[in-house]
Amino acid sequence: MSTKYSDSEIRIRRAQKDDMNAVAEMIQELADFEKMSDGPKISVKDLKRDGFESQPPAFQCLVAEVSKGDSNVIVGYALYFPIYSTWEGKSMMLEDIYVRTSERRRGVGNKLFNAVANEAKASGSSRLDFHVLEWNDARSFYEGKGATNLTKSEQWCYYRLTGESLQQAALQGTIK
Amino acid sequence: MSTKYSDSEIRIRRAQKDDMNAVAEMIQELADFEKMSDGPKISVKDLKRDGFESQPPAFQCLVAEVSKGDSNVIVGYALYFPIYSTWEGKSMMLEDIYVRTSERRRGVGNKLFNAVANEAKASGSSRLDFHVLEWNDARSFYEGKGATNLTKSEQWCYYRLTGESLQQAALQGTIK
Repeated sequence: MSTKYSDSEIRIRRAQKDDMNAVAEMIQELADFEKMSDGPKISVKDLKRDGFESQPPAFQCLVAEVSKGDSNVIVGYALYFPIYSTWEGKSMMLEDIYVRTSERRRGVGNKLFNAVANEAKASGSSRLDFHVLEWNDARSFYEGKGATNLTKSEQWCYYRLTGESLQQAALQGTIK
Repeated sequence: MSTKYSDSEIRIRRAQKDDMNAVAEMIQELADFEKMSDGPKISVKDLKRDGFESQPPAFQCLVAEVSKGDSNVIVGYALYFPIYSTWEGKSMMLEDIYVRTSERRRGVGNKLFNAVANEAKASGSSRLDFHVLEWNDARSFYEGKGATNLTKSEQWCYYRLTGESLQQAALQGTIK
């Protein structure tokens, strides 16, 4: 049975540009877990550019790192960015949080999640928003942290316009 | 019966700082419509600071303006900001879109929505995401534009951590 990592065995740190190789791998693993393996279209180069070379960066990222023998191994990540609420102002969106399959149930996800909450508060955010698939067992973890399922409690539906439909609407749009 | 505004009668333009008075009024009207009148905690001052004095601005905003006699009147707004997808990169979140009650069914919402789609494409976004209440009749409008209800098709739930729960998680969070 796996035991929790102690604080000295695991480190939550800000991702560096070179960590994007590991993050891209884990983005694919998360998509596999979500049963949408064809989802990711993004490259390591895109992640490096958008998160580290663009101003302002399009996202922020934390990684969870553990010591394995002589080397450090990245076992999870969280990717997030500022959003805005017209009710409460600055907020944070947690886009992805992922722990590698072999590293589950050892407290990594909890440490990552708390670290993102810390980042949210530090940036003046009043909310941390995220999306979870209904069948994902992690929902009980998030609810245990006190998160509310707004789809259930307030009946919010998540919508997306993309591809040709986005293009068509855009072509009709004018700003004077 | 109300008729559609012609292109010469209505103007979709970028909001100016001074428009935030009208936008704050409409944020409250939208909350009233959503049956959550107590939601908005934000002030005109907050909106001016976050959208116009901060770098980068926390949001972007368009307003719909029509001529009424000798003056121009703001009859709707859309508020949005860049987000990020780990599958497709740059995306846009449409946080609010609202048309004043007396101005509905005249094509204002369609023009605002198309203008936001135009902004999304212009900024290199591959997606325009937004949330809609399940009982909101505007869902059929969005679906007519080609938007997908991801809550229905992929079972995404919208979660939020806020208040004391966010604070508690943040206090346990450490980044090294």
